[in-house]
Amino acid sequence: MITSVLPGFMELLPAEQILFNHFLNIIRTAYEKHGFIPLDTPAIERAEVLLAKAGGETEKQIYRFTKGDNDLALRFDLTVPLARYVSEHVNELSFPFRRYHIAKVYRGERPQKGRFREFYQCDIDIVGRDKLSFVNDAEILAVIYSVFNDLGLPKFQIRISNRKLVQGLLENLKLEKIAVEVMRVIDKVDKISENEFKKSLVDLGIKEETIKQIQSFIGIKGHGEQVKQALESLNIKNQTFQAGWAELREVLNNVRFLGVPESAYSLDLAIARGLDYYTGTIYETVLTDYQGLGSICSGGRYDSLVENYSEQKFPGVGISIGLTRLFSQLRELDLIKLGASSPARVIVLPFDESAAPSALEIGSKLRKKGISTEIYFEAGKFKNKLSYANKLGIQYAVIVGEDEIKGRFWTLKDMINGQQEKLSEKELLKKITASEAGNR
Amino acid sequence: MITSVLPGFMELLPAEQILFNHFLNIIRTAYEKHGFIPLDTPAIERAEVLLAKAGGETEKQIYRFTKGDNDLALRFDLTVPLARYVSEHVNELSFPFRRYHIAKVYRGERPQKGRFREFYQCDIDIVGRDKLSFVNDAEILAVIYSVFNDLGLPKFQIRISNRKLVQGLLENLKLEKIAVEVMRVIDKVDKISENEFKKSLVDLGIKEETIKQIQSFIGIKGHGEQVKQALESLNIKNQTFQAGWAELREVLNNVRFLGVPESAYSLDLAIARGLDYYTGTIYETVLTDYQGLGSICSGGRYDSLVENYSEQKFPGVGISIGLTRLFSQLRELDLIKLGASSPARVIVLPFDESAAPSALEIGSKLRKKGISTEIYFEAGKFKNKLSYANKLGIQYAVIVGEDEIKGRFWTLKDMINGQQEKLSEKELLKKITASEAGNR
Repeated sequence: MITSVLPGFMELLPAEQILFNHFLNIIRTAYEKHGFIPLDTPAIERAEVLLAKAGGETEKQIYRFTKGDNDLALRFDLTVPLARYVSEHVNELSFPFRRYHIAKVYRGERPQKGRFREFYQCDIDIVGRDKLSFVNDAEILAVIYSVFNDLGLPKFQIRISNRKLVQGLLENLKLEKIAVEVMRVIDKVDKISENEFKKSLVDLGIKEETIKQIQSFIGIKGHGEQVKQALESLNIKNQTFQAGWAELREVLNNVRFLGVPESAYSLDLAIARGLDYYTGTIYETVLTDYQGLGSICSGGRYDSLVENYSEQKFPGVGISIGLTRLFSQLRELDLIKLGASSPARVIVLPFDESAAPSALEIGSKLRKKGISTEIYFEAGKFKNKLSYANKLGIQYAVIVGEDEIKGRFWTLKDMINGQQEKLSEKELLKKITASEAGNR
Repeated sequence: MITSVLPGFMELLPAEQILFNHFLNIIRTAYEKHGFIPLDTPAIERAEVLLAKAGGETEKQIYRFTKGDNDLALRFDLTVPLARYVSEHVNELSFPFRRYHIAKVYRGERPQKGRFREFYQCDIDIVGRDKLSFVNDAEILAVIYSVFNDLGLPKFQIRISNRKLVQGLLENLKLEKIAVEVMRVIDKVDKISENEFKKSLVDLGIKEETIKQIQSFIGIKGHGEQVKQALESLNIKNQTFQAGWAELREVLNNVRFLGVPESAYSLDLAIARGLDYYTGTIYETVLTDYQGLGSICSGGRYDSLVENYSEQKFPGVGISIGLTRLFSQLRELDLIKLGASSPARVIVLPFDESAAPSALEIGSKLRKKGISTEIYFEAGKFKNKLSYANKLGIQYAVIVGEDEIKGRFWTLKDMINGQQEKLSEKELLKKITASEAGNR
């Protein structure tokens, strides 16, 4: 029988899993700190609901099956379930509805490096009923900043634009009929050469002169006045462009007050986010020194979340972090270091069976103080017990033998520097509690 | 289009979800405090692996499907994936391997009250290589106690027995050939009348005299000396019975040192745990005043975890909490109270658009202190803003208007008692930080 994990599925060893969970926890904490409400929906939905808007690729990738008379499928993202949830519970929710959802999604695509068939998405969305202030778009930017700052990853930059700007440009260039195709090319600009970029546009029937205008448009990047002047010099007057610029200004004006340093984000007209879905603000996030990874956190504003299930308009803005892929990339680039293979800070090692009661007692007291503690019960050479503790990377070993029991003290061994000391119970609890507090 | 959640799937509203997550978090914290390592395996496995040992019911209930050439299925528990993981990673793990796994599992059974097709299991297991000390069985009992104590549920009792005792009795009564059938009847003793119980045994061809012996055996409950005498008076000498009694004594002798009060557990020979799987210690947990709910946390010791995939022996001991079902039962009995519909402790309410920058600034400062804070950006009457805060159950509102901005103070409204006070920034941060610390 094949007992290996299925290809395209991530399965981690303890030290990796602990680090992965640490990341999940930081993201969850950042989302909650910004007042987002947890949501958890079933992984299985009606296939009809999931596929209501989905295109060809999704239909190919989706895990679909029947059970009894039901045509079912596994969710391939967390946005469609959110739309279903909002339309189902609209009268029980308060709007704006700010939710986060951290869960696995499923896409049965061809396995390839860095692609997973089951992966965690960490999403937030703010969904309004009929309308939603653009200040929310500034706040989403602040959440992205907070998350990646808290994760302690290498230098990152958030790129922001507004879909209406590029749409306005394309209207101005009379290219609105092939807008989707052009945006798909723009989306790739960082991944292809200048010649390939030009050729892709020529293939769409676009003239040399017009291509130059597109190139100078997507070359606009930076901050404040500088960008403002560049945009104004384009001299685009149509309503779409002007609306996009007004929305973007509102975001940029407000984000200043949210404690996000200017160095953390930049206006970048080259981001287009291929999806039809977005209608306003769009975000991408890159690790500045590892841009080949692509965007590690993307999202944007949409006019209506649930247009497939509801007549009412639910405008929203949100982002998604694909943590499984990001984690795998960071590991591969050796940008994150593994720590211990156990959550335990302390392991209690009885010398032999007669020390078991004392070992249980001190272990129990440590746990009551909230200290993660393992008590080792197996028989065997003491050397093997220390080696077990070492393999798990547990910092402190409390050694309990005949001397300790007779002398009413505990031997504490720091497994990192090898130092041993004899401590009273009070001293032991104090020392480890203090060390624990320092670790938080 | 039907947008309701599928029958048999739990979907929660914000206040319920926050409470559910709170429970999950308490369980996770208790497991980690006892030094259990997190594990996360794919929800999709090879059908062949999942069904290697499974019987008829499981085959009927499993969600099975093909994708490409792969015969796949959704996991129906967390034990089979653990067995697969251990057999796959045996050389990379340290034994005893103590893992916890909190995740959803899937069983497509006929929907009925209190049964779910997707539900959370919260499992811990300690898995040894070749051997595993029975002190671990005492520790598992201490974890059960810790979890339910921390959850703050109504009075509960852990029932413990050892499978070998009932097996030894049945050997003694020459009933070993129908042992599985008899244990299935014993398992039901709390749910059926005495007459039904007797009839079930008579139907198995068991004599009146023998039934009396079974009845007096399963009537043995309690603690220490009392149980010891009752067991000895049975005068069962076979090896199975004696081994079971020795194992059980070791568990009971050690659990005393782990800080578990005697009132929290009881020896109870009526628990048999229908599954063939268990071979030693068995646990059940009931809410003392709501025994109709059945066992809310069960488990036991098994001789070998991975016998289907490996030649080597991996004895283990573990438990499982089915949180989805338990939560639904507690809600139904009104034993748990819902709290707020948002994780936010503070909401910042700007009077109008001109107050937005100040609102963003103070909101951002609160978040930097780790206080979960929502900032309300939507236009509209102030009354509606307060009503939104009230609906979400957020305790503190920071009101920002013209007076506040001019006078350089903040108005803090306690939404619970309605009191308002004017505070400097320093006073505000101090007050809310202190209140937050008190809440932890």
